[in-house]
Amino acid sequence: MRQVSIVGIGQVPVQKVYSESLRWLGATAVRQAMAHAGVDQVDALFAGNMLSDELQNQKHLAALIADEAGLFGIEALQVRAATATGAAALRMAYLAVASGEAELAVAVGAEKMSEGAATPALAKALDTKQEVAAGATLISKNAELMQLYMEKHGMPEDGLVNFAINAHQNALTNPHALFHKPISAEDVLQSRFIVPPIRLLDCSPICDGAAAVVLAPSQAARAYTDTPVHILASSVATDRFRMADRSNPLALEAAALSAQKAFQRANITAEDVSLYEVHDAFSIMACLLLEAAGFAAPGYGWRLAADGEIVLQGKVPIATMGGLKARGHPIGATALYQTAEIVQQLTGQAGPNQVPNAQVGLLQSVGGAAATVLTHVFGV
Amino acid sequence: MRQVSIVGIGQVPVQKVYSESLRWLGATAVRQAMAHAGVDQVDALFAGNMLSDELQNQKHLAALIADEAGLFGIEALQVRAATATGAAALRMAYLAVASGEAELAVAVGAEKMSEGAATPALAKALDTKQEVAAGATLISKNAELMQLYMEKHGMPEDGLVNFAINAHQNALTNPHALFHKPISAEDVLQSRFIVPPIRLLDCSPICDGAAAVVLAPSQAARAYTDTPVHILASSVATDRFRMADRSNPLALEAAALSAQKAFQRANITAEDVSLYEVHDAFSIMACLLLEAAGFAAPGYGWRLAADGEIVLQGKVPIATMGGLKARGHPIGATALYQTAEIVQQLTGQAGPNQVPNAQVGLLQSVGGAAATVLTHVFGV
Repeated sequence: MRQVSIVGIGQVPVQKVYSESLRWLGATAVRQAMAHAGVDQVDALFAGNMLSDELQNQKHLAALIADEAGLFGIEALQVRAATATGAAALRMAYLAVASGEAELAVAVGAEKMSEGAATPALAKALDTKQEVAAGATLISKNAELMQLYMEKHGMPEDGLVNFAINAHQNALTNPHALFHKPISAEDVLQSRFIVPPIRLLDCSPICDGAAAVVLAPSQAARAYTDTPVHILASSVATDRFRMADRSNPLALEAAALSAQKAFQRANITAEDVSLYEVHDAFSIMACLLLEAAGFAAPGYGWRLAADGEIVLQGKVPIATMGGLKARGHPIGATALYQTAEIVQQLTGQAGPNQVPNAQVGLLQSVGGAAATVLTHVFGV
Repeated sequence: MRQVSIVGIGQVPVQKVYSESLRWLGATAVRQAMAHAGVDQVDALFAGNMLSDELQNQKHLAALIADEAGLFGIEALQVRAATATGAAALRMAYLAVASGEAELAVAVGAEKMSEGAATPALAKALDTKQEVAAGATLISKNAELMQLYMEKHGMPEDGLVNFAINAHQNALTNPHALFHKPISAEDVLQSRFIVPPIRLLDCSPICDGAAAVVLAPSQAARAYTDTPVHILASSVATDRFRMADRSNPLALEAAALSAQKAFQRANITAEDVSLYEVHDAFSIMACLLLEAAGFAAPGYGWRLAADGEIVLQGKVPIATMGGLKARGHPIGATALYQTAEIVQQLTGQAGPNQVPNAQVGLLQSVGGAAATVLTHVFGV
């Protein structure tokens, strides 16, 4: 199997509402990433998008983005894993290059959530027959997890506030982020309940965006860039689909299993990770992922945040460019933004957000109520 | 790159309406294919489905099917290319095994078109802004092609009837096929217009079904079966997305390009092909694909059918188990049915449908109005 590296990145600034089309967003990120890699052609394009079926009435998006980007003739396929979809596109591009079927592949994620009702479409990441029919949404499932966590581990009401505070702080200096305003613990605790105990500022925002990365065989990477970033591992794992079927819903077994597989493949431990782009769609999810990936014992994830260890200079810097909470979470694009941000960090190009001596970046992406989790490890 | 072989197949009989759920259909095909390969675990599952977003309100299908099949923990991702989606799932499973990331991977396609309005959801394979907004559907686009073909090549009104007749004839003895009744030229020509010049019997039916195949490295294939079938090539190509942007819409450039790539990789020519599972969603598409893949010169595809060369004993046997027209076209499952049928043919297990001395099987899968085409070549 060939080693695979990232040789170009592209990020369209996240916005609440773009007037431009979904295809324009996707094609723009593709062209940016290709320009960054210094190439005008690729062999394959793998597109991640979750909501265009409902919001844009469009079901053939990879070929449409390839056409919009002027990439006639190339392979183009769409990949999905609900809210982890961007990472699925990255994995497919990785497989295409690793296998030798593509010399240059672009993974792109694009989402335009502002055109229509995103929330009911997002709920389709759950089991429609058994969960959605009973009134569940992604927010209510995360609220269940937070409630369970507070009860089991005695976490105080303000236990998670630093996740949102850190994300907003880091977004301040990221030009691609949606939010550029700091928030306080009071802001979080005084924001309205969405589904108790989850409040508005525990949630990532609905927004529009697109990001892309160009992949090449590591052996050839320096033909495109002086600073390639290597994909040290790519893994996927699933859990019992319905949270109700899991013996311990707080354990996020798909996250733990995919992290174990990826760490083994990359030959690292959690201690080697310089920064962790976590799936902080909800603060409780970031907390549980810190535990599942091995950065904290069960019941101690929130303390990492409370103790100030998740900031740029902390023990486990997370959401270093704003995270899902403050950079924004345009679903299918999110993991590609995170990948681009890890590339910025590992190449020393994160500006005021730079994590000191960043050598290894970790990315985890959560599909639905963690029925699917993808883990990627990056190094230089 | 590792060579990849098929070591197990599973097919749920196509039906107009299943009372069972989509997830049941998918999981049943998966378990059948795994039982056929003699395995009770796989590393990865790649699911093809086009319409569950609208028809089942379900957007996280790969993990759901894995759960339903009892495959806890494994990798599971969904892949799409509009109406070519089943072939996209096959390609992804191929890349996973070829790269070394999976030792055993299952590609499954499942579609339940009977739950709701399939036709408007199918139209989303076109450009919603520029084509669907102007009234186009997949049927109207194929009608355009047929009209253009008749005008350009002087094909008579009954020029395509043998495509449907052959498909229905071959489906008679396929237990997995939807239709088991022969039809005549009169039946075709007297069936009602859907969009002129396309008549009802020029179209594949809306139906429910699921099929799956298990892939393993060729080196290990005989541990699972005495009769592995090798994937000699897998390729994807795209065309200008909108038919109106193509200099010659009848040329199906994505089909021609992906066939050229696949033939080169497999080191074969069209003359080496023993049977061709063609994308006969509409008879005109089968005709154009015969030309694009190199079996007939432009304007002569219909003559292969008219001259009786597409039957089991003909020069280019197509739709050997009934094709999309008569086995049925449950979209995301179709290419997996076709792959399973090619496996039956190449292993001498096609019963009364057996093509004599079948050595090489060709599969082409068309997304939308041929904006995406996947080509797979199989051998023994």
